[in-house]
Amino acid sequence: MNQLTIIKVGGKIIEEEATLLQLLNDFKAIEGAKLLVHGGGRLATKIAEQLGIESQMIEGRRITDEATLRVVTMVYAGLVNKQIVARLQALDVQAIGLTGADMNIMRSEKRPVATIDYGYVGDVKEVNTEALSLLLNNGYTPVLSPLTHDNNGHLLNTNADTIAAEAAKSLAKLFDVSLIYCFEKSGVLLDEQDDNSVIPHLNRSLFEQYKSENIIRAGMIPKLENAFQALDAGVKSVVITKASEINTPKGTIIFK
Amino acid sequence: MNQLTIIKVGGKIIEEEATLLQLLNDFKAIEGAKLLVHGGGRLATKIAEQLGIESQMIEGRRITDEATLRVVTMVYAGLVNKQIVARLQALDVQAIGLTGADMNIMRSEKRPVATIDYGYVGDVKEVNTEALSLLLNNGYTPVLSPLTHDNNGHLLNTNADTIAAEAAKSLAKLFDVSLIYCFEKSGVLLDEQDDNSVIPHLNRSLFEQYKSENIIRAGMIPKLENAFQALDAGVKSVVITKASEINTPKGTIIFK
Repeated sequence: MNQLTIIKVGGKIIEEEATLLQLLNDFKAIEGAKLLVHGGGRLATKIAEQLGIESQMIEGRRITDEATLRVVTMVYAGLVNKQIVARLQALDVQAIGLTGADMNIMRSEKRPVATIDYGYVGDVKEVNTEALSLLLNNGYTPVLSPLTHDNNGHLLNTNADTIAAEAAKSLAKLFDVSLIYCFEKSGVLLDEQDDNSVIPHLNRSLFEQYKSENIIRAGMIPKLENAFQALDAGVKSVVITKASEINTPKGTIIFK
Repeated sequence: MNQLTIIKVGGKIIEEEATLLQLLNDFKAIEGAKLLVHGGGRLATKIAEQLGIESQMIEGRRITDEATLRVVTMVYAGLVNKQIVARLQALDVQAIGLTGADMNIMRSEKRPVATIDYGYVGDVKEVNTEALSLLLNNGYTPVLSPLTHDNNGHLLNTNADTIAAEAAKSLAKLFDVSLIYCFEKSGVLLDEQDDNSVIPHLNRSLFEQYKSENIIRAGMIPKLENAFQALDAGVKSVVITKASEINTPKGTIIFK
């Protein structure tokens, strides 16, 4: 099978000109088929604020009311996605920016209200592997923004780590997929304040241990859950690393 | 050659829920390959205002400074484009929303400053016919927003009528193209105040006459220039009509 590299890059990296340009140059250097998934939450918060819309976060997750959905649609699918696509094109990467609604790439369902009503937030139900592989096999590089749709005409805000994992799982049927989560830190850290405390290898039992010891916590937990699910679904490798290190064998390597 | 219908729909229609939904239903009913081009200027003006950015218009054309470019990128490529795509998906139309940067669909050059500096506005130089036909031949329906790119990493604001004409001209090599400009009026009118005064047929000499008599003026002039250029480039038919009449033989038919 052909190699496919999926990179998910977080908000802090893409919102600063210098780190974004370095990331896009490193992304360009990846050989073979590739796919980029981006966030953009910080910028969405900033623009919501400018529009007088208050951002409500519960446990690090954005509550997406109708006004907020409009903002994230503008910021993720418009501003962030298209600026990345235009810059990749300037680097001769044949990029194409997509939400889950485009080509019906990712269908989701609005998250049911349990204790918390997250609003217009979608849980991914189906990936259009055929559409993604049509693009990849014709030399195009999908750039996915963290929005899906419910196939009833509504866009839904969806976690970018999940988008990356779902794309990886679905494409693992057709490609040897490497999934790389990159951000401003060097990997999964033993001590959040010490960027030299990278855990080089992490399997599920070690993850459970660190979780119980509160060493791994907050947003890292769902990221790692996504990582283990991707491995279970046939993704060849999952790495969590620094954005400036995506082309080096550093960071945290995740094992089953 | 296969039939391809290109519909360009103006701002007033897409910004009202009822007229947008009717238009999308009528668009769905078109048989064969199809492509939709949308505007969104009124909504961009509104959101710019909410963000405290003043919209400067000269002769009906928007002056696009850096802040305005960010707004139109959010509104055209994000909010308007993705809401249309999500709604078309709900109608089982396999829509894919694109700017000129995506797949390098439309490369433009920043308009040189003559008497007026329009700012970040692009004049189309090249259409990626191969990319558009890859999508069309695989059953996908491109939905184009009025943004292009300069292949140096910059998005450029581009008139939606021009986007439609350029797409039509380029695809006329591979398809029998019908180009339909639709809006809130019934066609090209002899009297702008009288929606019953539609000019049923219009060729270039009649256009020049009406233009000299100031019967055809303002934004209708570049629209018709685009129409005649499309016919010259091999587009089979060009019609200017009411949005609710795109499936009927009404409106103004343009001849060479």
